Amino acid sequence: MPYFDAASSAPLHPVARQALQASLDEGWADPARLYKEGRRARLLLDAAREAAAEAVGCRADELVFTTSGTRAVHAGVAGALAGRRRVGRHLIVSSVEHSSVLHAAEVHEADGGTVTQVAVDRAGAVTPQAYAAALRPDTALACLQSANHEVGTVQPVAEVADVCREAGVPLLVDAAQSLGWGPVVGDWSLLTASAHKWGGPSGVGLLVVRKGVRFAPQGPADERESGRAAGFENIPAIVAAAASLRAVQAEAAEEAVRLRELTDRIRARVPEGVGDVEVVGDPVRRLPGIVTFSCLYVDGETLLHELDRSGFSVSSGSSCTSSTLTPSHVLKAMGVLSEGNVRVSLPSGASAEDVERFLQVLPGAVAGVREKLGAPAPETAVRGDSLVVDAVGKLCPIPVIELAKVIGDVPVGGTVRVLADDEAARLDIPAWCAMRGQEYVGEEPADQGSAYVVRRLA
Amino acid sequence: MPYFDAASSAPLHPVARQALQASLDEGWADPARLYKEGRRARLLLDAAREAAAEAVGCRADELVFTTSGTRAVHAGVAGALAGRRRVGRHLIVSSVEHSSVLHAAEVHEADGGTVTQVAVDRAGAVTPQAYAAALRPDTALACLQSANHEVGTVQPVAEVADVCREAGVPLLVDAAQSLGWGPVVGDWSLLTASAHKWGGPSGVGLLVVRKGVRFAPQGPADERESGRAAGFENIPAIVAAAASLRAVQAEAAEEAVRLRELTDRIRARVPEGVGDVEVVGDPVRRLPGIVTFSCLYVDGETLLHELDRSGFSVSSGSSCTSSTLTPSHVLKAMGVLSEGNVRVSLPSGASAEDVERFLQVLPGAVAGVREKLGAPAPETAVRGDSLVVDAVGKLCPIPVIELAKVIGDVPVGGTVRVLADDEAARLDIPAWCAMRGQEYVGEEPADQGSAYVVRRLA
Repeated sequence: MPYFDAASSAPLHPVARQALQASLDEGWADPARLYKEGRRARLLLDAAREAAAEAVGCRADELVFTTSGTRAVHAGVAGALAGRRRVGRHLIVSSVEHSSVLHAAEVHEADGGTVTQVAVDRAGAVTPQAYAAALRPDTALACLQSANHEVGTVQPVAEVADVCREAGVPLLVDAAQSLGWGPVVGDWSLLTASAHKWGGPSGVGLLVVRKGVRFAPQGPADERESGRAAGFENIPAIVAAAASLRAVQAEAAEEAVRLRELTDRIRARVPEGVGDVEVVGDPVRRLPGIVTFSCLYVDGETLLHELDRSGFSVSSGSSCTSSTLTPSHVLKAMGVLSEGNVRVSLPSGASAEDVERFLQVLPGAVAGVREKLGAPAPETAVRGDSLVVDAVGKLCPIPVIELAKVIGDVPVGGTVRVLADDEAARLDIPAWCAMRGQEYVGEEPADQGSAYVVRRLA
Repeated sequence: MPYFDAASSAPLHPVARQALQASLDEGWADPARLYKEGRRARLLLDAAREAAAEAVGCRADELVFTTSGTRAVHAGVAGALAGRRRVGRHLIVSSVEHSSVLHAAEVHEADGGTVTQVAVDRAGAVTPQAYAAALRPDTALACLQSANHEVGTVQPVAEVADVCREAGVPLLVDAAQSLGWGPVVGDWSLLTASAHKWGGPSGVGLLVVRKGVRFAPQGPADERESGRAAGFENIPAIVAAAASLRAVQAEAAEEAVRLRELTDRIRARVPEGVGDVEVVGDPVRRLPGIVTFSCLYVDGETLLHELDRSGFSVSSGSSCTSSTLTPSHVLKAMGVLSEGNVRVSLPSGASAEDVERFLQVLPGAVAGVREKLGAPAPETAVRGDSLVVDAVGKLCPIPVIELAKVIGDVPVGGTVRVLADDEAARLDIPAWCAMRGQEYVGEEPADQGSAYVVRRLA
């Protein structure tokens, strides 16, 4: 049963399981107590902090354990912003951050702060120049992920950190997707991570605040974890998180080569086998285990169901918006095709046989979905050399399918106007034009939704 | 190795351990995902929610899992206050709440809200009348613990809930100490609890918000747990928490009788064996496993060390202020002796033999500490029939020891003025007078600290 969604959550690493079980007997007491059970718990907590700090590349007293990566981000962003409130209330984030960062930014904005979103290129990467341009005298904090969770693109953290350092602005790095592969290089100021992403247990995140960084924890006072993470310490899980981080990092160099070969294989062979596919994300500067592609004329959720039925667990769009129908904010920011989006994220130990089988199953699954969706007849009306497709009320990928069906019916130089009210069309019709060598003329308001105008070039 | 500090944290219940281990394999995936691993995780989470809701006595959709009892309190207080912001910003708490509640109240006050602390009687209990008197037209929320964590006194929650209900004010009940003994009766509106207090794992709290209670979650948006508890769900721990809550409640009736007999034994025999002891907390309306007493002329921390050396793990003062030297806010609010304070909180399964051995060891441990502390000679000066003891710069319990040494040196009707700057003296000198049948005249400002005036009556 191949599980290919490690970027959401990784199965428990054997070292994490062992450490968790071993510390259930020793780690349940209050580490603030002076009796033997408390002292034992404190020793475990201190040792875990040392181990995690070494894996991160920081001092033990710079690292606290939170209850999740999300909490680490929320606490880190809020504390860093409050610590530099006198400087100003401007926050910089990339447009492809994890939703926990973007939601922290929303709260800051609702509270009267200002936020700049730095754009990314078509591969999903920011540039240090864009961060430099976004910096202002009142910038309190900048945030940048170490690597993107949806497409795997690695960000130029060290370069952005240098730009921020020069301006005296702390950089918070969300390292949730990359910490298992190794420490984040560069002169960053704060770092967050999440244990269940590297095969550690649920319930543990890391928040690192470098010495000298102004930080004012928000929320009710709590003396635990240097006042930065309220609540009773979950020591068995913390011990398991630290132990598995070291284990995973020790295996990382070798496993990275192996997984990169497998994802390269997927990157190369999906377009051949499936057709009408856009593989997204940087082909080189990327995480070893993640590959993401979008299939024209396919509904992502239906495709996931088909793959699940064949035994493959993969993801689509952004994990944090999976219960909504809007396209992923990451793919939107990259300006790439979002329809029929599939993210394959291989866990440590994923086998070549399973990847091969996936590559065999995928074309049939996509073809099945396309066939099923090909049915509805377009309602078209010719106006001179222009043709109107009414796809109002139809959801992705139907508007693009209708467009593709009729583009051959207008002469070269003629236009097709697609009427649609599904938000995904705004992203996917231009992406289709780019893939097909047709001209995307633009979007016009219509009675319901918008009219997307496409000119036939070929 | 008898561990008698269950009120801080209970050892893992066997059912919790089994459930945790069983669900490590099934509960690591993202329950928002549609593939099989996600669906399996979702089933576990849903079943745990049903089980916990049944144990609490609420609907499953009223209960969310947080990462600790502290987080449940912080989120519950903030969300309830925000939900009724239009009504006003007045918050009522008892003066003996857990520090997580009091710290949430401090943040509210710092943010411009107002807080009323309801006083308790000498047993540590509030009265419904006191809550009724504290209610105002702008009261947004009232908080009351189900039972006190330091002295075990059970609060009149149902009566206070009725008073609040009549005024249209929601009552939040911190049930951290009592939920393992059974559901909290009464018409409360919100409830919080902490799994590691009932033998569940660390890393799980409960927040219950009754249907119809206005609630506006604070902090960055997060779609998990009805938007009330941000971060990836720790499903194995949640499953273990729910399973162990049911198991513990099933054993509660029988175990309560047994532990109550053991704590009754401690209540009766400590004053006999040790002497100069005040047993605090309600002798009847109390939790089965907690008994707290304070020993005159004893330094609590030294006594804990002595008991730890004899193999007994007990606690002193408030757990959340154990790293500071100020006396517990609970004992202070009760107006009882705080020096030489010891809390014995028996875990489920504590043996009668261990309790007997404790009762045999305690008198010697107390006598040893008293002997060690008896050494310093008082600096006294007679002024008519008044005598001055200079205990400035001396810490609890020295000022009371000095007082006791010289009270016989003044005639009946004469006074002793104790000069002291240790904050504990303000609590302990009046308490000593009450225990010794002497008159506490009052406190006067002095050059350093205060002068505490005591009149000899006998």
